[in-house]
Amino acid sequence: MPSARYGSRPTMKDVAARAGVGLKTVSRVVNGEPGVTPETEARVRSAIDALGFRRNDSARILRKGRTASIGLVLEDLADPFYSPLSRAVEEVARANGSLLFAGSSAEVPEREQELALALCARRVDGLVIVPASDDHRYLEPEMAAGIATVFVDRPAGKIDADVVLTDNAGGAREAVAHLIAHGHRRIAFIGDRPHIHTAGERLRGYREAMADAGLPVAPDWVSMGPTTPDHVRAELARLLGGTEPVTAIFSGNNRVTVTAVRVLAEHVRPVALVGFDDFELADLLRPGVTVIAQDPARLGRTAAELLFRRLDGVSEAPRRVELPGTLIARGSGEIPPSLAP
Amino acid sequence: MPSARYGSRPTMKDVAARAGVGLKTVSRVVNGEPGVTPETEARVRSAIDALGFRRNDSARILRKGRTASIGLVLEDLADPFYSPLSRAVEEVARANGSLLFAGSSAEVPEREQELALALCARRVDGLVIVPASDDHRYLEPEMAAGIATVFVDRPAGKIDADVVLTDNAGGAREAVAHLIAHGHRRIAFIGDRPHIHTAGERLRGYREAMADAGLPVAPDWVSMGPTTPDHVRAELARLLGGTEPVTAIFSGNNRVTVTAVRVLAEHVRPVALVGFDDFELADLLRPGVTVIAQDPARLGRTAAELLFRRLDGVSEAPRRVELPGTLIARGSGEIPPSLAP
Repeated sequence: MPSARYGSRPTMKDVAARAGVGLKTVSRVVNGEPGVTPETEARVRSAIDALGFRRNDSARILRKGRTASIGLVLEDLADPFYSPLSRAVEEVARANGSLLFAGSSAEVPEREQELALALCARRVDGLVIVPASDDHRYLEPEMAAGIATVFVDRPAGKIDADVVLTDNAGGAREAVAHLIAHGHRRIAFIGDRPHIHTAGERLRGYREAMADAGLPVAPDWVSMGPTTPDHVRAELARLLGGTEPVTAIFSGNNRVTVTAVRVLAEHVRPVALVGFDDFELADLLRPGVTVIAQDPARLGRTAAELLFRRLDGVSEAPRRVELPGTLIARGSGEIPPSLAP
Repeated sequence: MPSARYGSRPTMKDVAARAGVGLKTVSRVVNGEPGVTPETEARVRSAIDALGFRRNDSARILRKGRTASIGLVLEDLADPFYSPLSRAVEEVARANGSLLFAGSSAEVPEREQELALALCARRVDGLVIVPASDDHRYLEPEMAAGIATVFVDRPAGKIDADVVLTDNAGGAREAVAHLIAHGHRRIAFIGDRPHIHTAGERLRGYREAMADAGLPVAPDWVSMGPTTPDHVRAELARLLGGTEPVTAIFSGNNRVTVTAVRVLAEHVRPVALVGFDDFELADLLRPGVTVIAQDPARLGRTAAELLFRRLDGVSEAPRRVELPGTLIARGSGEIPPSLAP
């Protein structure tokens, strides 16, 4: 049996083509399921031998000293949003007999590329990527060589690939419509840096909700930038000060929300707040924090399951899965507008 | 120049021995620092060539298609305690020109071993391990072959190795002494499963503080088990119910504390709480949650720096670094004992 080497890994589809049978038949033979005639089975087995095909979950036994593995490229190891996502990917990997290796791009496109290619060089079977880059053509040779790749949280750039996203614009629209329904007209958006896909989509949702209600958006109500506490504090001071302060804040992710909660706790006048992303203990704060909750565990699980479907040889056009956000009203988003101080 | 292969990586110490010079001299030559005579430099360079020694941070340029990397074996990707620890390890790795690959043992000893050995097989230069296992002899061949290994958060088992810990018993003693100083006598400890090193050390600190104050510990005040919300809720119901409920809780880690905060928020009678581990927004809850704060970023940074010292060829006896915990009083730990209901 030829050794399976990175760059020449045959798929179930290759086996099916060589044996002149359907994919389901190959799957039945590989998994020892009934319903295949001895003749067909012999033909499939002969194609398997000729191509050196190995099912992913037996690779760890066959490759001496190696274990099956997949790689995960995150944006930030320290952002709690990615913790349940990582754990879900790992659980699916484990259920499929694979180890997970994770690393972080720290939001630097070159670093994402370096990390993804380093994982490929270490012969992972597949990659789940939270993109920092907007151009993934560097992965085309790896994908052509059989490294399954699924993008999660943000789409792939300039290549066609599986992607699992939250409906960011839809969630943002719902958040802002909720504030408008509670009487707010002067609503600010504080989001991440504008080149980040999710930040752009949430800004789009904010603008759409304002437009739907026939409300103008003053240019200085939109703040896109680093989500560091210092920057968010400064922006909030600007938005809540002056002669025409905003009465509500839509914060674009959990890092912004946590700082906004701190600032608003010190602020005299009540200000409404809806945050994108749920976070631990949001319900125990006073007021509880109203959020658009994503389901990061489901994002990770869906992406990993898609990855293992590809590794099992399922060959179909790249899929785009979009998961809804969920509004959870807890108090902060239901504060009515108060008069300027 | 012979290719550097896993299992035969020479260190600066080897170079120094072969050239008959001190380690500092080798370091000067390698780093291009002054203070070495041309003759000595020639001798060192000749030893470097003969042994195939390569500085870690140039390895990525020399090894075609490979990048320098280190591995991190965590206990749980989804525990926020490990987020700043991971990020600190990654920052030190990056500063040293290395990538970081992280994976989780999910507290299963066999999985820790599988992951650590899989990282070694993928030719990481070194490992930072949060142990799930209490026997690390399986790593001895890897360490002898030059894979630097540093343990963090919990000590290595049955081998002599670098380790970076928090003073868990000391921190627990301080937490419980703080509750005693506020008048409590009936104090419960809810900790992680007893085989976990940190859980055992925190229990020891609890017992020592009670003994120091001459207070008895009723056997049913000590609860060690899974830190799942259901289990912690059930234990709290037991400890806070009955005819002689406890008046204070010392919770053994942030997972327990977060559930305790939820349960106590619903409880009629005020109960004091001190938690081991700080957590985000602990200061914004009402009451603020008093904690013994560890410094997970410093744990990670210290461990990674120790690792790269080893990779730079520093050869000295294994070190044990113990970092102090810090009591942060915020309200929950200063609630006085109230009469039984």
